[in-house]
Amino acid sequence: LDQESISGMQKRLDAKIKPLRSLGVLEDISQQLAGIQRTSQPEIKGKAVLLMAGDHGVVAEGVSAAPQEITAQMFYSYLNGEAGINVLARNSGAKVICTDIGIALPLDPPELMANRVKNGTGNIAHGPAMTKQEALLALLTGAKVAAEAIDSGINLLATGEVGIGNTTPSAALISAFTGHTVEEVTGRGTGLKDDALKHKQDVIKLAIRVNEPDLADPLDTLAKIGGLEIAALAGAILEAAYQHVPIILDGIISTAAALTAAQIAPLSALYMISSHNSEEQGHRIALKQLGLKPRLDFNMRLGEGTGAALMFPMVEAALKIADEMATFESAGVSTGDF
Amino acid sequence: LDQESISGMQKRLDAKIKPLRSLGVLEDISQQLAGIQRTSQPEIKGKAVLLMAGDHGVVAEGVSAAPQEITAQMFYSYLNGEAGINVLARNSGAKVICTDIGIALPLDPPELMANRVKNGTGNIAHGPAMTKQEALLALLTGAKVAAEAIDSGINLLATGEVGIGNTTPSAALISAFTGHTVEEVTGRGTGLKDDALKHKQDVIKLAIRVNEPDLADPLDTLAKIGGLEIAALAGAILEAAYQHVPIILDGIISTAAALTAAQIAPLSALYMISSHNSEEQGHRIALKQLGLKPRLDFNMRLGEGTGAALMFPMVEAALKIADEMATFESAGVSTGDF
Repeated sequence: LDQESISGMQKRLDAKIKPLRSLGVLEDISQQLAGIQRTSQPEIKGKAVLLMAGDHGVVAEGVSAAPQEITAQMFYSYLNGEAGINVLARNSGAKVICTDIGIALPLDPPELMANRVKNGTGNIAHGPAMTKQEALLALLTGAKVAAEAIDSGINLLATGEVGIGNTTPSAALISAFTGHTVEEVTGRGTGLKDDALKHKQDVIKLAIRVNEPDLADPLDTLAKIGGLEIAALAGAILEAAYQHVPIILDGIISTAAALTAAQIAPLSALYMISSHNSEEQGHRIALKQLGLKPRLDFNMRLGEGTGAALMFPMVEAALKIADEMATFESAGVSTGDF
Repeated sequence: LDQESISGMQKRLDAKIKPLRSLGVLEDISQQLAGIQRTSQPEIKGKAVLLMAGDHGVVAEGVSAAPQEITAQMFYSYLNGEAGINVLARNSGAKVICTDIGIALPLDPPELMANRVKNGTGNIAHGPAMTKQEALLALLTGAKVAAEAIDSGINLLATGEVGIGNTTPSAALISAFTGHTVEEVTGRGTGLKDDALKHKQDVIKLAIRVNEPDLADPLDTLAKIGGLEIAALAGAILEAAYQHVPIILDGIISTAAALTAAQIAPLSALYMISSHNSEEQGHRIALKQLGLKPRLDFNMRLGEGTGAALMFPMVEAALKIADEMATFESAGVSTGDF
C-alpha cells in the first residue's frame, strides 16, 4: 500500500474536530483505502458483491442438512433480486453479480452456465474435488468476473457464495492452511445437530487423509480439498488486489478463499476488509491468520455475502468522515491535550 | 412488547429463503421492532440522534485531558452540521437534534440556551452534581425533546452527548447501579495516561463517598453523581419507551443514562437497541446489566452518538429483510431440514 497516501489521510483525519484516533476502525479503513487507491482522497465509485455458486460432491456423505438442489434454486433467486443478499446489497446501493462457477444441476437458459467449470466438485472424502487445471480455471474465471466488475467502474467489492455443503471444504482448507485441528475449525453449517457435526469432522479428516494435499502448493490444496466457488473467490480477491481495489470478506467460505489467496500472494491480505463474525467457529481463526478482526457481531450464518454487505455503509461512512467533517481550524474548536 | 406481533414477524422471517434464524441479530431487531410498534409489519418513518450537551464541575479535579470550553465550541459544530455525528447521521438519512441542557459557558444567540437547566453541574468530588429538582427538570426536558421528535414523525431514535468530563459521572453511575468496582468501570475518556486514570478513579471513589447516593432512589443517585446530559438522555429513553419508539444506545455515557432509565422503569430496557462496543471498559458491563450485547466492534471513543448512528442502516436492513425477501413458496425453493 502507498505509505505517502496513508500518511496524507492520517493528517486529514488528525485535523478533524475529535480526539486523535477516536473513530477507530473508521479511521483505519480510510487509511487502508488511501493506501490501496494511492491517494489521500480515496473515493468509492461503485460497489458490488461477487456471488459465486458451486456444488460439492461431498454432500453424498451427508454433511449438510439441506438438499443439493437448493444451490440451483437459490441461483435463480439471486438473479431475480429477491434473496437476502439482494435486499442487503440494494439497501446500500450495491450490485449483486452472480456467477455459476460449478453448480451440479443444469440451469435454464443455458447461457447462465457460461462460466461453469464443471458440474460440481468430486467427493473429497474419496478423491480430489477437482483437477489442478480445473482449480486454475475456476480461479481465473473468478479473476475475470472481478476484472469485468472493476472495468465497469466498481471500486469496492465484496465476496459472497452459495453452495450446499461448502462449509465442509472451507473447514478443510482452514485446517490445512492454519494448522488448527479439524474440531477447532468445523461448525454446524446451516444447522447440524451434535452427531452430524461429529460426522462432518470425520469426513473432513478423511478428506485430508485421502487426498494428501501438498500444503506448500496452495493450488494443489485448493484442487484436492477445496471447491469451485472458493477457487473463484480466491481468484476474485487476487484480481482485486492486483487492480488496487479493496474487497470485503463475508463469512467462513469467503475467508477460506481469502486464506487461499493469501497463500498464493501474501500481500493480497492488505486489500481485504473484514466484516462480520460468522457463527462458524473456523471463521475467526482464519481471519486472525489474515491479520483481521471481525467488526460486526450479528450471529449470522446465511452466507451469500450478507455479512459483507452490511459493511458497505461502514466503508462509505469512513470516507465521509474524511471528506465532510470540519477541522479544528475551520470550526474554531480548541485542540487541548487529547 | 406485543407478543402477537413478535410471533407474526417470526412467521414472516421463517418463511424467507434462508435457514431458520440464520440472519441472527437482524431477525432479533425485526422482532423487537414488531413488538415495540405492535404490528408484524413495523416501519421506520424517520430517524434522529438526540444529542444532549452538558458540562461537569468535576473537570476542576483534572479528570479530563480536554478543556471545558470545547463543549460549547462543539455545540456550534453540531448546529453547523460539520461534526462527526452530523456526517454519520447524514450518511444514513437521520437528523441530529442538539439540546443545550447544561453547558457551562453562555451561547450566542441566547435562544440556544432555552432548554438549559443550569450552567454545568457542581463538582461531584465535593458535593452533589445538582439538586433532585434540577435532575428531574433535566430528565423531563429530555423527555420533552424526545416527544417533540416523535411528534414530528420520527420513530427511530438514537442517543448522543457531548460534555467534557462526562465519562467520570458515567463511570460513577455504572459503578453505583451495577455494583462493579470503580476500577472495573473506569476508562481513559478522551485519552488519559496511567497516572491520570488512577487519579480519575480516586475522584470517582471520592464522589461516591462524599455524596452517599441512595442507590434505592435512582433520581437521588443521578442528582448526586450524574450529569445534566445524562439525566436528559435518561428522560428521552423513558419517553421513547412510553411512546413505543425504539432507541439506539451509543457508548458509555448513553449507556449510563440507559441504566438510570432502567432503574426508574425496568421495562424501558426492552426498547433499547445496542450499537457499538466503546473503548470505555464500563460500557460492556452496563450493557450486560441491561441484557444487551454490543454489535459493532470499531474501537470508537468519540461519543456524540457516532456509534449509535452506525446502527441506523442495520435497523433498516433488518426491516427490509422482512419486507423484500422472497419466501420458499414464492421463489419455489426447497425447504429441506434446516
